[in-house]
Amino acid sequence: MRVYLAGPEVFLPNALAVLEEKVRICRAHKLQGVPPIDGSQPAPSPTREGALAISRNNEELMRGCDLVIANMTPFRGPSMDVGTAFEMGFMRALGRTVLGYSNVDDGLLERTVALCQGARSPTGWTDPLGMTIEDFGLGDNLMVDGAVLTSKSEVIRQTTDDAARFIDLTAFARCVEEAARLVDTGTIRGRHSIR
Amino acid sequence: MRVYLAGPEVFLPNALAVLEEKVRICRAHKLQGVPPIDGSQPAPSPTREGALAISRNNEELMRGCDLVIANMTPFRGPSMDVGTAFEMGFMRALGRTVLGYSNVDDGLLERTVALCQGARSPTGWTDPLGMTIEDFGLGDNLMVDGAVLTSKSEVIRQTTDDAARFIDLTAFARCVEEAARLVDTGTIRGRHSIR
Repeated sequence: MRVYLAGPEVFLPNALAVLEEKVRICRAHKLQGVPPIDGSQPAPSPTREGALAISRNNEELMRGCDLVIANMTPFRGPSMDVGTAFEMGFMRALGRTVLGYSNVDDGLLERTVALCQGARSPTGWTDPLGMTIEDFGLGDNLMVDGAVLTSKSEVIRQTTDDAARFIDLTAFARCVEEAARLVDTGTIRGRHSIR
Repeated sequence: MRVYLAGPEVFLPNALAVLEEKVRICRAHKLQGVPPIDGSQPAPSPTREGALAISRNNEELMRGCDLVIANMTPFRGPSMDVGTAFEMGFMRALGRTVLGYSNVDDGLLERTVALCQGARSPTGWTDPLGMTIEDFGLGDNLMVDGAVLTSKSEVIRQTTDDAARFIDLTAFARCVEEAARLVDTGTIRGRHSIR
């Protein structure tokens, strides 16, 4: 089983080391981790052509994977990295299993109220523009969390030290165990389609 | 041609009116706008089951659409709404055309540097955690912008008044014109697959 390793850790200065460790954890559970970057690619040119080459490479890698484990840790705001959210949608549309974890345990509502001056209104929680803050008891937007729930799993959330937020792999490892369990029970059966 | 209308305007207090106006603009260009909500659904229960019902409904709506026009305006941080990013990935994986617009013209780099205390380092722009800030001259993360470029289009960006950021439909209307042009030239030919 090939597992696409989606997450904003590609932006870390030690991205390759963190991704290698993710691959190692997968291997310990008889899963093949597929990182978006592995050091074999040339440094991208800082142009839209460079960006497009990475985008196309990641899409091809995803098409060749049976499931995705997404790092849904809030990134530069109350919600997760949008590139990773895109990849969850991509894999979901292909009918592949979508698993996810976050190194912040607070729910979306709590985080958004805190970071975006949310307030209680007669119709629910809203931000200063009057826009609703989702209140479904989930960790993030209902489309991304919904993909994990539809995959018969749960987003694994636990809070780490701030400094370790994008490095700590404890929740990731729990997610890999969950993937191995879903493979063992036949819930994940390769590149089949879930509707 | 059926156009899925993705964007965070679903969170506006006047969401239905804004979405109706989007549908009207589509109709003026002989396109059928498909909003995620249209007032016919019951109010969702504030539970994960309520969230999951919306998630499943949106996924089914997307499967029945030929293209998506995504509102990529930065939402509660330097990047776009993650639910909309998920939907762009979903449509991209199905091979449908992905178009997008933003009511903020600044690029991702400028916005992230401003909002997240970015600084120039020897390896490029980084945030306070040392994580790279993408510098490809794009409006947002390379996966979301890449999907639009691969669809042979451009993200249409223009800055509106702050108060009109999630209401102004000028850039959306330009995006609909672009969709109509791509249909006329045969670039969009219905639910075919782009790789």
